[in-house]
Amino acid sequence: MKLEHIGIAVKDLKSSTKLFSELFDQESYKLEEVHSEGVRTSFFRVGESKVELLEGTTSESPISKFIEKKGEGIHHLAFEVKDIQSEIDRLTKLGYQLINSEPKDGADNKRIVFLHPKSTNGVLVELCQEKT
Amino acid sequence: MKLEHIGIAVKDLKSSTKLFSELFDQESYKLEEVHSEGVRTSFFRVGESKVELLEGTTSESPISKFIEKKGEGIHHLAFEVKDIQSEIDRLTKLGYQLINSEPKDGADNKRIVFLHPKSTNGVLVELCQEKT
Repeated sequence: MKLEHIGIAVKDLKSSTKLFSELFDQESYKLEEVHSEGVRTSFFRVGESKVELLEGTTSESPISKFIEKKGEGIHHLAFEVKDIQSEIDRLTKLGYQLINSEPKDGADNKRIVFLHPKSTNGVLVELCQEKT
Repeated sequence: MKLEHIGIAVKDLKSSTKLFSELFDQESYKLEEVHSEGVRTSFFRVGESKVELLEGTTSESPISKFIEKKGEGIHHLAFEVKDIQSEIDRLTKLGYQLINSEPKDGADNKRIVFLHPKSTNGVLVELCQEKT
């Protein structure tokens, strides 16, 4: 398992991309829109992990709702696993709650599933597996 | 630069250590108390990064105050830099605000400094350098 990325909810992708470019002293290497999730994203590489900035594209987007409720900040942690289905099975047996019970398509060519923050100390945890 | 660790504020270090042990399918490899910061910590390795659970040991601890205000969850991201002083100089010139202007001792044999979340989209960012 490795930390694949950290998702950070931002109000304005353009100005936040500039801010994190300066912080990390490097340019964002990718911009991507995920229509099904209602987000525009911007990616940075930090060692083996990525930082993914997320801006909601509609008021119904989970990111827009998060910012409305809690303000800008860290939205989720994504851990890469080799076999997402076996991890889902293992964690479900241990009593962890999932937000979506089946993996779905996410940004960056991944199959993803979210654990409910109630199960994980208030941390929204994503499990992801690269699509083959 | 790499993501050295993610700090997660928890109410009860023992039960949260069990929870993340199950999530990561591994034991915590270290428990450490940092008296100067008023915290007890528990560490997990996830790839090249660590997850650090933090429990406040006094009601005055920044972690206790964070939980009182926002509940349990991700508290900070720590990025390892080679030369903390030159990073402080670079970022200060760019207009980033620091919480402590001089590096101080943190857990895990590090010199650390925090950037103010107002400068960084609501994300509390720690810069750290291994003590030599």
